Amino acid sequence: MDDFLKVAFDEAKKGYAEGGIPIGSVLVHKGKIIGRGHNKRVQDGSVVLHGEMDALENAGRQPASVYRECTIYTTLSPCSMCSGTILLYGIPKVVIGENKTFMGEEELLRSKGVEVVVADDSACYNLMQNFIQEKPALWNEDIGV
Amino acid sequence: MDDFLKVAFDEAKKGYAEGGIPIGSVLVHKGKIIGRGHNKRVQDGSVVLHGEMDALENAGRQPASVYRECTIYTTLSPCSMCSGTILLYGIPKVVIGENKTFMGEEELLRSKGVEVVVADDSACYNLMQNFIQEKPALWNEDIGV
Repeated sequence: MDDFLKVAFDEAKKGYAEGGIPIGSVLVHKGKIIGRGHNKRVQDGSVVLHGEMDALENAGRQPASVYRECTIYTTLSPCSMCSGTILLYGIPKVVIGENKTFMGEEELLRSKGVEVVVADDSACYNLMQNFIQEKPALWNEDIGV
Repeated sequence: MDDFLKVAFDEAKKGYAEGGIPIGSVLVHKGKIIGRGHNKRVQDGSVVLHGEMDALENAGRQPASVYRECTIYTTLSPCSMCSGTILLYGIPKVVIGENKTFMGEEELLRSKGVEVVVADDSACYNLMQNFIQEKPALWNEDIGV
C-alpha cells in the first residue's frame, strides 16, 4: 500500500477502534502530511466530518495556493459532500483506497479536471465490509440512505 | 423577507458582528427549525463550517427520512461543498437569499431534482457586499480563490 494511503488506513482503523465509521484520510502538500483525520459521526456526533472533511479541518485554514498543490488520500471513494469540498478548494488529485463498497462522485471530479486514482486496496475494502456487516444502520445513516 | 430566510439572515448578521463571514442558514423540518448556523471560518478556524454546514451540524444526526422532508434556507447560493452535502442527505428544497454575489451549484442541484428558489433579497446582498468590500482576502479564502 502507498505510504500516504497507509496513513489514511491507519486513521480508518483508529476510527473503527473508537466504535466509529472506519474511513480515514490525509491531506498531503508537496510530500508532507498537513492534515489527517477520520469519520467522526459516532465520536463527535458530527454529520459533516467524513474522513476527508476531518483531514481538511485538521489541516486548518490554508491559502488557495496550498490546496492547489495538494493530494488528498481517502480509504473510500468520496461522496458528493467530500467531492464538492475537493472542488471548492481546487485540490487537483485524489487517491482512493477502494470504490467497491461505495462509488462516490469520481466522474464529477474527473469532469472538473481532478486526477482520480483508485488503488483498489483489499485491506480498505475488508475493513469496510466488516464494519457494514456489524453496523449496517450506522453506515446507511452516514451516506444518507 | 420569508420568516425562515429572516432567521438565516439573523444568523448571517450574527456572524458579521463576530467579525466573521456573514452567511447564515437554517434547516427546517415540517415548518419547524431543527438547526441554525452561520459560517465559522473566523470564529472556529473552520474550513468546513459554511453557514449551511453549521446549520446541518447543529441539527445533529438525523435519519434520512427527516432530511427528505426538510427545506434548507441559506442567505447565499450554496457552493460545491454545501450543494454536495444537500445532495448527500437528499434535502429536496433549497431557498437562497441571493446569488448575485456568488453563483453556487444551483444547476447541479436542479439537475438532481432539488427544488431551488432564489429570493433575490437585497438585504442579504448588501450585507455580503459590505463584508467583501471590508475583507476581500477573507472572502476569497472562503471560496477557495
